[in-house]
Formats: sequence, C-alpha cells, structure tokens
Amino acid sequence: MSDKGILFVVSAPAGCGKDTILNELFKRVDSVGYAVSATTRAPREGEVDGVHYCFLTREQFEQKISENEVLEYTEYCGNYYGTLRKSVEGLLSQGKDAILKIEVEGAMNIRNKFPEARLVFILPPSWEVLEHRLRNRGTETEDKIRERIAQARTELDFARNYDYLIVNDDLEAAVDDLVCVLRAEKLRKEHNNALLDSFK
Amino acid sequence: MSDKGILFVVSAPAGCGKDTILNELFKRVDSVGYAVSATTRAPREGEVDGVHYCFLTREQFEQKISENEVLEYTEYCGNYYGTLRKSVEGLLSQGKDAILKIEVEGAMNIRNKFPEARLVFILPPSWEVLEHRLRNRGTETEDKIRERIAQARTELDFARNYDYLIVNDDLEAAVDDLVCVLRAEKLRKEHNNALLDSFK
Repeated sequence: MSDKGILFVVSAPAGCGKDTILNELFKRVDSVGYAVSATTRAPREGEVDGVHYCFLTREQFEQKISENEVLEYTEYCGNYYGTLRKSVEGLLSQGKDAILKIEVEGAMNIRNKFPEARLVFILPPSWEVLEHRLRNRGTETEDKIRERIAQARTELDFARNYDYLIVNDDLEAAVDDLVCVLRAEKLRKEHNNALLDSFK
Repeated sequence: MSDKGILFVVSAPAGCGKDTILNELFKRVDSVGYAVSATTRAPREGEVDGVHYCFLTREQFEQKISENEVLEYTEYCGNYYGTLRKSVEGLLSQGKDAILKIEVEGAMNIRNKFPEARLVFILPPSWEVLEHRLRNRGTETEDKIRERIAQARTELDFARNYDYLIVNDDLEAAVDDLVCVLRAEKLRKEHNNALLDSFK
C-alpha cells in the first residue's frame, strides 16, 4: 500500500519559462502527471483537446460547475478557465503526483480547497532579465510588453503565498530544482504512512 | 543579502548507513557543513578532535552547560554527549547550512529549541535487511546484535516526529534523496526573503 499522490501547483509570470521547465520535468519524472485544465476558449493552432486543455462549450462548463466537478474557475476575456476535479483526482487516486499549471488566483483557490497542495512559483532572475526576455521574443508590441510586465508585478505579489520559489536563471538548474521539490515532498513524513506502518 | 542557513538534524539506527550517506553528501554539497558534537568520552583510534567530536573534560563540558553554550545534551554510559551552540551558530551565521548527526532524543530537544530545524530520519528497507546488515558486520556478539535491534525499534518509534524519511536501500538513491531535501528546503519561501525583497 502506498500513500496517495501529491498535488503540485506551478505558477509563473509570462517569460519565466514555465512551459519549458514543465516539459523537461515530464521527460525526467514518470511518477508525475499533468492535470489538464478546462476552458471555453477556442483551441489555438496545434492545441489538442485533452492534452493542452479540455475544450468545453460554455454550457458544458456551467453544467460541470453545477455538478461540483470544477475545483476552481475564473472568467477571463469572456471565457471560462478552470480545474476539473476528475483531472486532478484521477491522477492522485492512481498514486501519481499531479501538476496543475495555473495563474495566481486559481492557485490561491486551490490552496483553500486543498491545504495539502504544494505551490511552486517560478521567478525570473530579475526585472531586467524578464523585460529583456519579453522584448527579445520580438513578437509583441511595446504596449503588450508593458502590459505583461505590469501583470508580472501583480503576480509576483502572490509569490509570498507559495511554498517554493524557483528562479529560472539557468534552465537545467531550474528543472533540477523542481525535480528536487517533488522528490523531497515525497519523502515528507506525512506522505509515508504506509512506510511507517511497515515497521510496526 | 542572502538568508541565514538552515539547521538539519539527521538520525538513524545503527546499520542504516548514516555515516556513509553523510560522507557522500559532504563530497557533493559545498554549502553545508558538519556541526561537530561534543563529548566527554575518550577519543577512539582515528578520531580527531574537532572533526569527529569536540573532546572535552567533564569539567569543561559542565562549564559550557552553565554558560548556556550547550544546546542539548544527554548522559550515556557515564559520559556527556551534546551539541555546542558555537558549532551550529558558527555555520548558520556564515549562511551555510548545518548538519547535526544526533540520536532521537537529542533531535527532539533540538526541535523544541529550534522549531525551524528540519529533521531527517534514515530507515533501513525493512527489519529483515537491518538484522541481516548487523549480522553481516561479523564484529558483534548475538547479544549485542539483539540489543542493537531492540534499540532500533525504540528509535524508529520517533520517526513519526521527523520531517523527512529516507530509506537507505540503494546508497546512491539515499544520497540523492538527502541532497534533494537540502536543495528543496533552500527553495522554501521562508528561506528566500532576500530574493522576494529584490523584486519589490
């Protein structure tokens, strides 16, 4: 008998390399699965239903809310974004750890509903580096860049409410950090009742 | 400005490979130092003062107790064993993490005095393996082996009071576990006030 899986929440402002870090993590760690979020926005090119998001109609989403199947959700630019209970609990009940990639307010909602969830915030090395990264993408207008930086400032105010802070300066080091956080959490006493019982 | 170091306490019953794991850890991680314990027992062959223990006379030890220089101590077989304040605080104030290798009751005393200390317990894979390891040393009498196993049972009752549990089944994996615990703890929000302040 092993203990139940652990729910990890990962948040980061745009330009902090969150997706790259998570992709590397999933390549390296088998025992963790991605808890896919749901949304009512239309899929973008290349996005696969059930992989990047569960794409739902507004009616479907609201139906799930009424059935208590949505752990937390928010409305943004006229679309719902949320976390499906099934998506998280499906992984945890298999003994897998689950990673939920959500923004700061969703993370705070998860914390309230699942106090045992562990929250990880990914930071840039500094404001200067973040600004430089956003500019160097070369795909966005000056206004859009400023908006993203302002948003990053708001998001960073929430970092104090997270359990772990990882600076993405060097990608490999940041992935190692996240791997260690997952590994160390699995070693915590409260996740090893089955082990302790085996010594009774 | 970086944050203060973290105090880690490592305990394990005899035969769990604690010393081997710690030796490997110190080879791999520069940022952590060994907080040397003090004792009034005579040095054994090969033991170096200030490295394996600080060897003190009974008078010196009692003098340090009266000066509040001993964080915790116990008397065992007519000798004092204890933790010197200087030994721990010297490392922490340099921003280094400190590892204290002590038995379970000392660990509980440290927990009371330093609630922020992180406690790591190293376990054998099973009772059978531990017994096998103790017998295979071939250096001890049957009575002594039974005594060690009985002592291990008492010590294991304390494992529930530790923060992290590491099973030493495979040495490399156990060292990796401990390295991850140290690394993950450094990433905890409460140890990164300086980082958060840099984003203000």
